[in-house]
Amino acid sequence: MKFALHKTKTMEKKPKRTDVNKLGEFGLIDHLTNSHQCINPSTLKGIGDDAAVLDYGGQPIIVSTDMLLEGIHFDLMYTPLKHLGYKSVVVNLSDICAMNALPLQITVSIAISNRFSVEALEELYSGIFAACRNYNVDLVGGDTNSSKKGLIISVTAIGTGAREKISYRNGAKPGDILCVTGDLGASYLGLQLLEREKQIWQSNPGIQPDLEDQTYLIGRQLKPEARTDMVLSFEKGGFNPTSMIDISDGLASEIHHICKNSGTGAIIEEALVPMKDETQLMALKFKLDPITCALSGGEDYELLFTASEKDLPFIRSLPGISIIGEIRPPEEGIQLKTVNGNFHEITAQGWQHNQ
Amino acid sequence: MKFALHKTKTMEKKPKRTDVNKLGEFGLIDHLTNSHQCINPSTLKGIGDDAAVLDYGGQPIIVSTDMLLEGIHFDLMYTPLKHLGYKSVVVNLSDICAMNALPLQITVSIAISNRFSVEALEELYSGIFAACRNYNVDLVGGDTNSSKKGLIISVTAIGTGAREKISYRNGAKPGDILCVTGDLGASYLGLQLLEREKQIWQSNPGIQPDLEDQTYLIGRQLKPEARTDMVLSFEKGGFNPTSMIDISDGLASEIHHICKNSGTGAIIEEALVPMKDETQLMALKFKLDPITCALSGGEDYELLFTASEKDLPFIRSLPGISIIGEIRPPEEGIQLKTVNGNFHEITAQGWQHNQ
Repeated sequence: MKFALHKTKTMEKKPKRTDVNKLGEFGLIDHLTNSHQCINPSTLKGIGDDAAVLDYGGQPIIVSTDMLLEGIHFDLMYTPLKHLGYKSVVVNLSDICAMNALPLQITVSIAISNRFSVEALEELYSGIFAACRNYNVDLVGGDTNSSKKGLIISVTAIGTGAREKISYRNGAKPGDILCVTGDLGASYLGLQLLEREKQIWQSNPGIQPDLEDQTYLIGRQLKPEARTDMVLSFEKGGFNPTSMIDISDGLASEIHHICKNSGTGAIIEEALVPMKDETQLMALKFKLDPITCALSGGEDYELLFTASEKDLPFIRSLPGISIIGEIRPPEEGIQLKTVNGNFHEITAQGWQHNQ
Repeated sequence: MKFALHKTKTMEKKPKRTDVNKLGEFGLIDHLTNSHQCINPSTLKGIGDDAAVLDYGGQPIIVSTDMLLEGIHFDLMYTPLKHLGYKSVVVNLSDICAMNALPLQITVSIAISNRFSVEALEELYSGIFAACRNYNVDLVGGDTNSSKKGLIISVTAIGTGAREKISYRNGAKPGDILCVTGDLGASYLGLQLLEREKQIWQSNPGIQPDLEDQTYLIGRQLKPEARTDMVLSFEKGGFNPTSMIDISDGLASEIHHICKNSGTGAIIEEALVPMKDETQLMALKFKLDPITCALSGGEDYELLFTASEKDLPFIRSLPGISIIGEIRPPEEGIQLKTVNGNFHEITAQGWQHNQ
């Protein structure tokens, strides 16, 4: 191989330039990685699910990784560093849960500009360790780096579960019931509240922020939890989802992943989508359609899963689970049945009138 | 827990502010993580070595992670994206090799600003996949993100090796011979050349860069390799190092890690430190002491290891290995014996006259 200063390549001559936004995040990953063939027999599942699954001869190894960037994923204006540390761990643990597995270890790499003090990092790590304690997870590696600007956190989570219980995105079958844990949309509305107060404060720093005592909504945004409790309940009940994914980008996006991977359609009933009263009220206050907040808001870190009809009694017996619809044949598409009985197509971004 | 806008905490009031540079990278990691106790029996080795070691009942799981940032770890002015992709994988594989293990999978997370095109990312990934092919490694996960500025790459490498062969930093014993693979200092001098030409080009873009046909030096900087071949040779010879580390920060820094973790001293003989003629000549051209380049340059991604005296015949039989010194009792410190027969203390940054 010949080495040269490739200025011409990277800096001057650009024969073709396709904007990355043209492909979108998922399209971009697909485009960049679809030529890659996994060759090691120890790779059971590569790219394309919530986590990879490896087999080194013992319990399966579930691995997931996520990067969080200041100014993109979080705003330090209203995100306490301790909460940020906690959340950056939790969002990765949630991916392990989505495989019906439990996390055991994490690595954390951070990059910081010199505006961060040792005390600020202690705050961040106190949140990381709080998450480790809450979820019985060990911090086993990582590095610290300098950044030119801002804070960057990259977490890898590793865990395991019984081989026959691992839930992928591709196991849903027409007739399966569609379920979600907890409630949706609250995190998104917590973010709206924080953003509103930030705007007000920026135009007049003398004004005290008014978060309207919305502890629940703001807590869902700043300090989400991973549903390891659900994974444990499933195990205790001898129940395996036919497919599962965690809700990080919004219900609409996640149901698309399940249907695309499983080769199915789905129907979601608006009236069955779990939302707290305070979420719905705050949506209306922001002049937003509550169901849109649930479909497109994201950052709920709840589990969306499908179950065989035979598991209906178990699902019904478990508190904190809502049956929100059904998996349908692929030709029926992915639809929302509104409270008025109308049907609308759900796009990955949310839903739109099918006219 | 009460949530509030923590502006006062993170933005205004700062009761105490310790600069992170006061602690240094290793001091900072120690400071932030030394209170953390690993609780899972599956965690065999946490923070403090080249990689973590986990036990899920089968082959041990070796995990390492590293983050590379534009403007800190690489300069796109002279780093072709394909080489960057290759190198960002290799530096992580090198950490797995340092445990006397072989890599099998990687995850890659990237963050990019909108100045990067799809074609630029294709270049980057072509280098990532070239490394995957060369080292028989599968890309199994990761994500792509937007960054406000610059390119950030975070790689996690996972691999395995026989349990009884894993080499840690803490196994060196006085009397062990100290060895290094390959040759040192070339990558650092390749970087000096690239930086020099960048400066010249920046002050006069009309001038063609003159890399003096230094393919070897520049190749060592832009396209380093991980010594999986050595791990395989060790296995074939039935040899286990008593301790091992890869040389990413320079020989001086790495020997300090081994001695600190093993509770020993060491002596390195200047005359035995392997350097290519072209490295030594280029050092002199830059008016640098060649041994200083080897001790403090870094990014060689060679393996520094210790071996019992009984393994001397095997070590001598293996091409590409240099015996550079000996592990000594801790009270002797870490010393360099110069070609003139003088002894100097080696600090983690390099060496200094001890009067």
